[in-house]
Amino acid sequence: MDQVSIREVGLRDGLQSVATVMPTAAKQEWCDAEFAAGVTEIEVTSLVSPKLLPQFADADDMVRHGLSRPGLIVTALIPNARGAERGIALGVHKLNYVLSVSESHNRSNVRRSTSESVEDFRRIVALIKAQPPAARPKLVAGLATSFGCTFEGAVSEDRVRRLAVELAEAGADELLLADTVGFGNPVQVRRLFTKVQRDVGPMMVAAHFHDTRGLGIANVQAALDVGIRAFDASLAGLGGCPFAPGATGNVVTEDVAFLCEANGIPTGIDIDRLIDVRATLSRELPEVRLLGNLARAGLPKGFERTAA
Amino acid sequence: MDQVSIREVGLRDGLQSVATVMPTAAKQEWCDAEFAAGVTEIEVTSLVSPKLLPQFADADDMVRHGLSRPGLIVTALIPNARGAERGIALGVHKLNYVLSVSESHNRSNVRRSTSESVEDFRRIVALIKAQPPAARPKLVAGLATSFGCTFEGAVSEDRVRRLAVELAEAGADELLLADTVGFGNPVQVRRLFTKVQRDVGPMMVAAHFHDTRGLGIANVQAALDVGIRAFDASLAGLGGCPFAPGATGNVVTEDVAFLCEANGIPTGIDIDRLIDVRATLSRELPEVRLLGNLARAGLPKGFERTAA
Repeated sequence: MDQVSIREVGLRDGLQSVATVMPTAAKQEWCDAEFAAGVTEIEVTSLVSPKLLPQFADADDMVRHGLSRPGLIVTALIPNARGAERGIALGVHKLNYVLSVSESHNRSNVRRSTSESVEDFRRIVALIKAQPPAARPKLVAGLATSFGCTFEGAVSEDRVRRLAVELAEAGADELLLADTVGFGNPVQVRRLFTKVQRDVGPMMVAAHFHDTRGLGIANVQAALDVGIRAFDASLAGLGGCPFAPGATGNVVTEDVAFLCEANGIPTGIDIDRLIDVRATLSRELPEVRLLGNLARAGLPKGFERTAA
Repeated sequence: MDQVSIREVGLRDGLQSVATVMPTAAKQEWCDAEFAAGVTEIEVTSLVSPKLLPQFADADDMVRHGLSRPGLIVTALIPNARGAERGIALGVHKLNYVLSVSESHNRSNVRRSTSESVEDFRRIVALIKAQPPAARPKLVAGLATSFGCTFEGAVSEDRVRRLAVELAEAGADELLLADTVGFGNPVQVRRLFTKVQRDVGPMMVAAHFHDTRGLGIANVQAALDVGIRAFDASLAGLGGCPFAPGATGNVVTEDVAFLCEANGIPTGIDIDRLIDVRATLSRELPEVRLLGNLARAGLPKGFERTAA
């Protein structure tokens, strides 16, 4: 059955760039309300050091809360093997490890070379494999700056493909090609996803787009066109990359859901209910401008969800 | 040579929904600056009664100004045959006559049935044909609500196609399918434009999208995918339909240009220079929120225009 999986990343990628620390209860309200609206995978937190990012000081609580909701796939970002250890101990379903294809971006982001990050990834795979099967989380290999870099400009597609294959062979369960800084365009998206899917075979390849230059939703459509069925998105477009100047805004979850449903591909999401969740953001983050036109205009008259 | 023509409609569709009457000198500055940035077709005004829309009380001056710029294609909206007479007398290059496929929208917009509007269109064709060849403007047949209607919901594609063929056979030089209220999605856009192009043969078929529900740029890409090479757009996304609640925002000219260039299809537009024109809008319309992410983030590092 053809369907799309939309992973909410606002609680991680979104909040990461917001100065206000959102109270844990509000984050959990957000998480629960999205799950109730039909979003079945949520990146609930980042397992970084709370000294680095106070926004994620409640990471353990967020994971435990997510795990208490049967049917929700709980994912968490991990910056390194230490984060993976924490994630495994907590019982996170899916760990998201991100490295940058661009050396400059990787150094700026995690202060090491891309190949050092690949080695770190291998250590994480080994850690996971050392667990009993029931305790092994799925592992996502996120390839940041796959479509370009604010420091380096164009990024070699061959390099993206080589890294994708290397991480897949090393043990990734899912590849995530990320347009971290919003450089990508639909032609490039179709070309690169087509090649990478061919390179890595039947494994899950997901897409993470930012709407930095207005092409975010067009890029989602382009990825749908070539068979991609898993997307990161952020409610109200919250987020960005704090290390990449001007790179604000994940694609808007409710707009992505609308686009997929309009394509006739079910998402399992009740879009009106999803839009209602924005009220939590308005209340908790009054200084943040919520993005997304659909929420203001509402669904087209007569619009019907695709049956799942 | 494959290229895209982007028609700026902010001076008409944009200003139509803005309460502040922009001074004529500022409008002309805007027109000149866009032309200098490489936009070669501009809808400079609407030839409606100034009593109805004071924003267009300077319509004659705007047309004369546009005509004084060699190389600029000057277009104007006409609501009826009287507007066509004015346009012909002024020497406008291209007249844009819009009717709505949806009966309810047409009645709300121009207080007559769609078939009465078609009859009006035929009178306009006759008026133009009565001129000596050198004095004949091109005539655009705009089909509003081609992708749905806030009153009626879904709009029959067969009805769009029948009207398109009828207007083409009646003497239109160009067809413009408009998603007036932002109901369209990429799948629908590809399907309808493919059919209409097949129906009407080699004549110019252009697209007019609004970003009301976040899919505007994805719809431009979808139209590009099926061979459409002419688009309406509005600088900073200014505009909307004052008669359709919530239907704000044409697609953003600078984002459309970026998308086309990223597709490798030349537009002839210097995007950085186009972005600079927004300063005129900020100055003259301080109460209006300018849209478009590209303007804030700037072009991707290393981005190069496609050679025309």
